[in-house]
Amino acid sequence: MTEQLVLGADIGGTAVKFVVGGAEDPDRYSGEIPTDTSDVLETFVRLAAAVADRLPPGVALAAAGLACAGIVDPVRGYLGRAPNLPGWEESDLAGALREAFGDIHGVFANDVNAALAGEARFGAGRGCRDLVMLALGTGVGGAVMVDGRLVTGTRHGAGEIGHMILDPDGPLCGCGNRGCVEAYAGSRGLLAEARRRADGPGAGPALRELIAARGAELTTRDLAALAVAGDNPTASLFRDTGRMLGIAVGNLVNLLDPDKIIIGGGVAQAGDLIFTPCRATAASLILCVASRDTPIEPAELGPHAAALGASRLARDGLEAA
Amino acid sequence: MTEQLVLGADIGGTAVKFVVGGAEDPDRYSGEIPTDTSDVLETFVRLAAAVADRLPPGVALAAAGLACAGIVDPVRGYLGRAPNLPGWEESDLAGALREAFGDIHGVFANDVNAALAGEARFGAGRGCRDLVMLALGTGVGGAVMVDGRLVTGTRHGAGEIGHMILDPDGPLCGCGNRGCVEAYAGSRGLLAEARRRADGPGAGPALRELIAARGAELTTRDLAALAVAGDNPTASLFRDTGRMLGIAVGNLVNLLDPDKIIIGGGVAQAGDLIFTPCRATAASLILCVASRDTPIEPAELGPHAAALGASRLARDGLEAA
Repeated sequence: MTEQLVLGADIGGTAVKFVVGGAEDPDRYSGEIPTDTSDVLETFVRLAAAVADRLPPGVALAAAGLACAGIVDPVRGYLGRAPNLPGWEESDLAGALREAFGDIHGVFANDVNAALAGEARFGAGRGCRDLVMLALGTGVGGAVMVDGRLVTGTRHGAGEIGHMILDPDGPLCGCGNRGCVEAYAGSRGLLAEARRRADGPGAGPALRELIAARGAELTTRDLAALAVAGDNPTASLFRDTGRMLGIAVGNLVNLLDPDKIIIGGGVAQAGDLIFTPCRATAASLILCVASRDTPIEPAELGPHAAALGASRLARDGLEAA
Repeated sequence: MTEQLVLGADIGGTAVKFVVGGAEDPDRYSGEIPTDTSDVLETFVRLAAAVADRLPPGVALAAAGLACAGIVDPVRGYLGRAPNLPGWEESDLAGALREAFGDIHGVFANDVNAALAGEARFGAGRGCRDLVMLALGTGVGGAVMVDGRLVTGTRHGAGEIGHMILDPDGPLCGCGNRGCVEAYAGSRGLLAEARRRADGPGAGPALRELIAARGAELTTRDLAALAVAGDNPTASLFRDTGRMLGIAVGNLVNLLDPDKIIIGGGVAQAGDLIFTPCRATAASLILCVASRDTPIEPAELGPHAAALGASRLARDGLEAA
C-alpha cells in the first residue's frame, strides 16, 4: 500500500500556511501562499499548485484538512460568518476544494478548533482527552475538546471563549458588549488598556514614553519587555490581565473540569507575566479541590498549530472512512 | 426474558426520593424515605426495604442508579465533597449499595447530572444531544451534556455553573468568591438581594412590608407573587436577576452552543419574571447569529428529575453491559 499524504492548511486573512506529510511527519513539506481575500476558488487553485510544486512527481494527496478563521460547518464544509475573511463569508469551501484538488477526502474546521486538534496530537495536549484552548491574538479565540472530540456546537457556534463576559461593566469589546475576555486578554484590548493607563495618574514615565515613541506600532511584546525590565505600572497591567484571564480559566474549569487548559497566541508570549497571576486567580476560584491544580500551560506548536491540526483531522477522517 | 426493573434514587440532605419501574414506565412505583445523614449504609438498607415493600413478591431489581448532591466519581461509585451531606463525605457508595442490595448493577451520578439525564430522556431535553442545565435552588447547580453524554470532567468537578463568575465585584457568594451565578440566581442570593434593596431608597413600601411580615420565612415564591401583583421594585429585582442569568446563559451558548438550555429549580418557578429578561440578555450576547434563538426553557420533570435520570443512567448501563 502506498503512503497516504495529507494536506493541512490554515487560511488566515493574509496568508495560507500549509503542511503536507505522512502520519508520522505531517509537516514533511510546508509553505505559505497569500490569501486572495476576495476569491476562495482562486486561493485554492494556487494552494493546489504550491502543494504540487513540493511533492515528488506522480505523488497525489489522499486528503486535505482546511482550517479557517470563522464559523465553519464541518459537515457541509461551509464557511459562515468570518470577520477576518469578509470576502469569503457564506462560501462553499467543500465545493471549491473539489474544483481545485479533484476528488479527495476533505475535512473542514474553525482555525482555533484545528489548533487545539494539533496541540492535542502533537503539542501541549498530548495524551489528553479533555482540553480547553484559548488563543490570545488580536481577538481571543477558543476551542473545547471533550472525550477526544472537538465540541463544535449544534449551530457551529461553540468555542467563543473570547466573548465570555467577565464583568458587564468592563471595557468595551469589539463585539459591542462589555467585559468580554477578549477586551482584557486580546492584544487590541491589552493595548487599549495600556494607553488608558498611560493617560492616568499611576502610569509612570516609562510606559508613557514607550507609548509616545511607538505610537500605532505599539505591540504587546514592547509592553512585555518594559514589564520584564522592571517597570511596575506595566507589570501591574499584565498582572491585571492575567487575573481576568484567571477568572475565565476558573469559570472554564468549574464548568468542564478538563485535563488541561492550553493558552496560545501572541499575548501568551508574555509568559509568566500573565501565566503566574492567571494560575493563582484560577486556583482561588475552582470549587473542586482536586481540580485546583489543573495545568494551565502555554501552547507548544506556535503558528503551525492549525495547519498541523487540520492535517490530523483529515487523516482521522481518512482512517475512519 | 423477564422484565428488568430498575431503581433510580435521588439522595438529598433530608430525603431519598426513589422510583422503580420498567423501560417505558420508570416510575411505576415511587416513594420517599428520610436520609440518615450520618450513615450511608443504614440509609441504603432502609431504601432496599422500602423498595422491596413496593415490588410484587419474587421480583428483584436488575440495576440501581443513585444520584447524590456532591462530587461523585461515577466510575468508582465514590462520593467526595458533599456540602449537603456532610456525614456522607468521602464514602464508598458502591460498597454500601452492594451490601444493602446484593450484587446488582450500580450507577452513580451527581444529582444535577442525573436531573439533566432525566430531562434529556423524559423532559424538556427530549430528542437533544447537547444540553446545558441550571438548577436554581438554594444554591445553583449545573450539568453539561455533549453528544448525548454527561460531561463529568477529568476530576469529576465539571458542571459547577453556579460558580461561574459574572462580576468580580458582585455580591458575596457562599463559596467565598464574589459575583458567582449562585449569588444572583440561587434563592439564598436572591433573598439577600431583596433584603438589601428593602433597606435602600428605591424599594417602596410593599417589598419592605412583605420582608418585615415574613421575616426568616421569606421565600422567592413570596417575592414572585408580589412582583406579579404589580410591585415595580420587586419586578425589577427579578428583571435584574434574569439579566445576570442571561449573561451566564450567553456565556454558555458562546462556549458550547447546545441544542437547548434548561433551567429548573425553585427560583425558575418565577417563570416569565426571570425567563423573559434572561432570554433577551442572552440573545444580545450570543455571537453566532444562528444561535441567538437557542431555546432557553423551564425544566419539565420537577422534583423527580434526578431519580428518573438516575434510573435511566442505570438502565443505559445495563443495556451496554
